[in-house]
Amino acid sequence: MHLVAIGGSDAGISAALRARELDPSADVTVVVADAYPNFSICGIPYYVSGEVGHWRNLAHRTSADLEATGMRLRLDTFVTDIDVAGRRVLVREPDGGRSSIEYDELVVGTGALPVRPPIAGLDELGAQDGVHLLHSMGDTFALTESLDRIRPRKALIVGAGYVGLEMAEGLTARGIEVTQVEMLPEVLPTVDPELGALVHAELDRHGVRVHTRTTVTRIRRTGQDEHGKGSGRLHVEGTGQHGEPLGWDVDLVLVVVGVRPDTDLLVRAGAQTGPRGAVSVDETMATGLPHVWAAGDCAVTHHRLLGTTYLPLGTTAHKQGRVAGENALGGATRYAGSLGTQVVKVFDLVAARTGLREHEAVSAGYRPGTSQSSPDDHKAYYPGAQPISIRVTGDLDTGRLLGAQLVGARGTETAKRVDTYAAALFHAMTVDGMSELDLSYTPPLGSPWDAVQMASQAWVREHQLPPQQVALATSLPSSLARP
Amino acid sequence: MHLVAIGGSDAGISAALRARELDPSADVTVVVADAYPNFSICGIPYYVSGEVGHWRNLAHRTSADLEATGMRLRLDTFVTDIDVAGRRVLVREPDGGRSSIEYDELVVGTGALPVRPPIAGLDELGAQDGVHLLHSMGDTFALTESLDRIRPRKALIVGAGYVGLEMAEGLTARGIEVTQVEMLPEVLPTVDPELGALVHAELDRHGVRVHTRTTVTRIRRTGQDEHGKGSGRLHVEGTGQHGEPLGWDVDLVLVVVGVRPDTDLLVRAGAQTGPRGAVSVDETMATGLPHVWAAGDCAVTHHRLLGTTYLPLGTTAHKQGRVAGENALGGATRYAGSLGTQVVKVFDLVAARTGLREHEAVSAGYRPGTSQSSPDDHKAYYPGAQPISIRVTGDLDTGRLLGAQLVGARGTETAKRVDTYAAALFHAMTVDGMSELDLSYTPPLGSPWDAVQMASQAWVREHQLPPQQVALATSLPSSLARP
Repeated sequence: MHLVAIGGSDAGISAALRARELDPSADVTVVVADAYPNFSICGIPYYVSGEVGHWRNLAHRTSADLEATGMRLRLDTFVTDIDVAGRRVLVREPDGGRSSIEYDELVVGTGALPVRPPIAGLDELGAQDGVHLLHSMGDTFALTESLDRIRPRKALIVGAGYVGLEMAEGLTARGIEVTQVEMLPEVLPTVDPELGALVHAELDRHGVRVHTRTTVTRIRRTGQDEHGKGSGRLHVEGTGQHGEPLGWDVDLVLVVVGVRPDTDLLVRAGAQTGPRGAVSVDETMATGLPHVWAAGDCAVTHHRLLGTTYLPLGTTAHKQGRVAGENALGGATRYAGSLGTQVVKVFDLVAARTGLREHEAVSAGYRPGTSQSSPDDHKAYYPGAQPISIRVTGDLDTGRLLGAQLVGARGTETAKRVDTYAAALFHAMTVDGMSELDLSYTPPLGSPWDAVQMASQAWVREHQLPPQQVALATSLPSSLARP
Repeated sequence: MHLVAIGGSDAGISAALRARELDPSADVTVVVADAYPNFSICGIPYYVSGEVGHWRNLAHRTSADLEATGMRLRLDTFVTDIDVAGRRVLVREPDGGRSSIEYDELVVGTGALPVRPPIAGLDELGAQDGVHLLHSMGDTFALTESLDRIRPRKALIVGAGYVGLEMAEGLTARGIEVTQVEMLPEVLPTVDPELGALVHAELDRHGVRVHTRTTVTRIRRTGQDEHGKGSGRLHVEGTGQHGEPLGWDVDLVLVVVGVRPDTDLLVRAGAQTGPRGAVSVDETMATGLPHVWAAGDCAVTHHRLLGTTYLPLGTTAHKQGRVAGENALGGATRYAGSLGTQVVKVFDLVAARTGLREHEAVSAGYRPGTSQSSPDDHKAYYPGAQPISIRVTGDLDTGRLLGAQLVGARGTETAKRVDTYAAALFHAMTVDGMSELDLSYTPPLGSPWDAVQMASQAWVREHQLPPQQVALATSLPSSLARP
């Protein structure tokens, strides 16, 4: 039994680890296109910021750790083709030579590629000009090399999603004046603008110049690098929220506007694709091609509330890879599905979400309602209490919890409070039912009804308890009668 | 419709609030034996420590807040009897006069009383001597008066449960040298001694002199208060872990060894009792006496894994009170049951638990196994990562999660990580199934598999994945096949 995994990031490594865990006799090879297996892509902003001392620390496990589990690593080895009928992958070796690797089962975890937005000049400019995309360790080294060489005073970041925000913080931490440009109406567009506005304010507070509803249209070199380092080497043009032309002179541009699935190999091998062009897999992570599984950012995502979608996240890649590794060995497990649970730290603020927002819920056929409240993280009498802004979305017809979004200061346990909503969503609880959960309480860290329950109770009061419905105590609405 | 609640603490107030929320036309009266309705008993240690500036801040809501909801408060009014047949309670008014209050429905939330251990001298000594029990606001004022008057240099605390530990921290914060005596083998006996030992070390680190397996047998006055304040007014005798006699000269003694249900009123009215003598209620919080409900620390606790038990907690009192208030109005809701979720902060450490420990699981008919692991709270490459010590208990026959105990530094989101286990327990998940939960991740605050999942995976590896069972990949153990 020879299991081959393509890709050294979360999905491929998780598949390999799971296979070795379940069957120490399984022969497992991971083919890695670069020299950085099992690196934490999510950690890149903290290396760029200087918080992670050495890039090697970004590895979840070292190559030696991985090999100690009994798997074989083929680094700097690029898979050029999958020969499904021949059960082998064709590869380009580190020295450029061609060969092939036979497999019994194949797990493909080729991941994603950074999206290149239609900005004039982007294709012509590159790292040597201080214009960067950021996704791989290679991109990371190119960026840090630019930072060391150019010593930019000013940088412009295109995009204010997770990575864009983390990089705004990271470059600010390096003393660089950051301008952040987001096409959508508010930063962190994965949460409602009411909460995105809190993140926006946090960026303002730390000196990031934020432009929302603004599109970057062109980047060009100014030639000013002759006159000294970091003094406006690049001119960026854009269009502001009222259609007005905008321009910025900066020393570095970072374009981080999301990713698209890297499906080239699988599509050429005959795999079907689904949402956003990601490779179709069923919940066992089977591609439909015999003995070929796929997992992680290259594949579609099964969402417990949305069905099949595309939602590339590291947590999902770990889970999908683990399922693929188990099933490739003959197991019969299924990926239980994503809820899109995410969290980001932006300076001293933490923003998290799980499940659906209203517009997503409408698309999925629900009739959603949302309430916002701001319960304290712990009892107000104990020093340091801070409000957490929580938006709860539920289905008005069934009372079912559909999603939650939270923004709180660091130290308010916001990141793990979203997990309670995620667990409630996993089990299809009603919003009202959340009050039944037996959650922990001590005055320095919580409340007798935890903040997540106070927020769910606020939803119930707003959407299920209009006084006229409950004027007669003897005829309580059925939504209150729990099964 | 006139709802009367006896007791101004969590259960009584929660019942009254729920009734007013559901039916603004309901006439609601809360009879409170003292002048402190809706005070946070759990906050008392933080008032004694000086962290809460004014005792009034300990109120969850002020009397004005409560009255603004439309409920009536009868303060300093002591219920002497329940006349079940006459549907009225007999009361002693603040001025000593007697009267009665008629009700349609009655919710009894008389709470608990502090246990007085069999220590010679305890009954003769009191606040004037610097010997205190601590449960009510009255006890709190007596203690703070003693602290101000005696200005103790040394204090001895009998008991190292939640309140004992919080008071050890609180008195230490006031500059008092604290000796803490616990009869059982380790402090915080509600968690396994492996984790209690971590709390013990934290106490040591902060100068608390801890004696475990030690019993206090006698307290007497030394008469030394003639010679100056705070110089050994009391002599405490005890028996050490090897049976050796021990003695301590201190200025103040605090006895906090737990509580017992205050059931006098209900028992005299004919209510049945259950575990630990608490008043029997069904899951609707009905006592069996017509139109009489009970909730909170005076009543038994329905536990989702143990059945009927006694487990007095503020969170439970809130939930039970809310159920009682709803049902007293004619609702048909049930208390979903406790999991015994608890958390305590001890100096810079947080200790939490939910569900069962091994010996409790055995009593409940399970065949438990426990694993301990120490995953980091977040990715090690990001500064400040700290291990959380997690003990996971699961049923070896079914793989079902039975409980979890966690000890981590403050800042590791340990308090809300226990909630994920609590939610998993609520839904009867397997330990293995926890890996399916879609939990949040960002490197500064978590890991792709959250710490709670790494700990559950450690349990699975130890108890469900011996290599010989999985040598053949095509015959995976059934425990891995998820429904």
